[in-house]
Amino acid sequence: MTINYPNGTPFRFPKNQPKAVNPATTNYGDRGMSLEAEINQSNRFYREHQIAVIHKKPTPIQIVNVDYPKRSAAVIKEAYFKQASTTDYNGIFAGYYLDFDAKETTNLNSFPLANFHAHQIEHMQSCYQMGGICFALIRFVKRNEIYLLNGPDLFRFWERQFQGGRKSITKAEFQKNAYRIKPRLNPLIPYLDVVQMIIDQNKGELE
Amino acid sequence: MTINYPNGTPFRFPKNQPKAVNPATTNYGDRGMSLEAEINQSNRFYREHQIAVIHKKPTPIQIVNVDYPKRSAAVIKEAYFKQASTTDYNGIFAGYYLDFDAKETTNLNSFPLANFHAHQIEHMQSCYQMGGICFALIRFVKRNEIYLLNGPDLFRFWERQFQGGRKSITKAEFQKNAYRIKPRLNPLIPYLDVVQMIIDQNKGELE
Repeated sequence: MTINYPNGTPFRFPKNQPKAVNPATTNYGDRGMSLEAEINQSNRFYREHQIAVIHKKPTPIQIVNVDYPKRSAAVIKEAYFKQASTTDYNGIFAGYYLDFDAKETTNLNSFPLANFHAHQIEHMQSCYQMGGICFALIRFVKRNEIYLLNGPDLFRFWERQFQGGRKSITKAEFQKNAYRIKPRLNPLIPYLDVVQMIIDQNKGELE
Repeated sequence: MTINYPNGTPFRFPKNQPKAVNPATTNYGDRGMSLEAEINQSNRFYREHQIAVIHKKPTPIQIVNVDYPKRSAAVIKEAYFKQASTTDYNGIFAGYYLDFDAKETTNLNSFPLANFHAHQIEHMQSCYQMGGICFALIRFVKRNEIYLLNGPDLFRFWERQFQGGRKSITKAEFQKNAYRIKPRLNPLIPYLDVVQMIIDQNKGELE
């Protein structure tokens, strides 16, 4: 089928067209795009309403070869994804340093701890010891359930696997130890409601 | 001049040699490498001694084309450097959220405010309003002098340029308003000594 412009000349698809890319998107890694997108949108809401300043860190990239054409921007010609040495998100809320990661599982009844790298847990443990609030946001994709698992609970399950325990956290353990987050409109994932509860509980324990 | 190997065969520079790249380094942008390297080393010292957990954020990169060869790692074939929307460093120290940027100038007598982007200043202002400690580490390269300029002072100089004031901060203003940081061995740039002073002063003002 030939398509013509209104003036009658035939339309041809341009050759050597660059791959379509949305210039507003940053690559945030391969997994968990949709949970990440929802968290990013929630963080934007929190920032715009001056509730918190939380950003996703860019994916670390190992650059091998860069071309510097005259009069135009540098082009990276060869690069590789690197493993992040920390978590994906951090920022400030109510005067507190926040640090967390977001993970998804397609499992129905348990979350495999292999989703975390040891250095991510160690990073959160270090931040927690300095007074930061650290946690994981975990989505059971097939159930569409999101949980916030607070740092101390996550660390306990993490250590258990090295003491002969299971290498995952069961759904029942989430229901008992984590906070279920019900999606809303604004923000999509109102996880700071839970963080505020944790802050209030910590204060209560100190008094 | 011909250079020979010990066995007598002449040495020739290899053709088409790839650009030398240190595989252990992450690209942190074009400017301020040496100050950044020293801050990174200082942050490593602070982390290893459990004094603070502060990391440099990876440079944001806009990925356009990725090749996924079978059985090997994904190769980024076309990508561009993006402008960072926040500052370069953040983390936690003494329970406080820290957020800062590092800049260098080859000027002798003033620091041009054009080194900052408006959104970097706005980001620091937001974090400051939530109780974070925000500042800039600025090196006068030719004098080899490093200053820590605290957020409220930086914001004042930043705003001044929009009220008909100068578009830079003079060396004399640094000497009056900022804290000089004398390099040490461990850490190389002991900037948390100054941050501790700022925390103590803020506490004193609240009492």
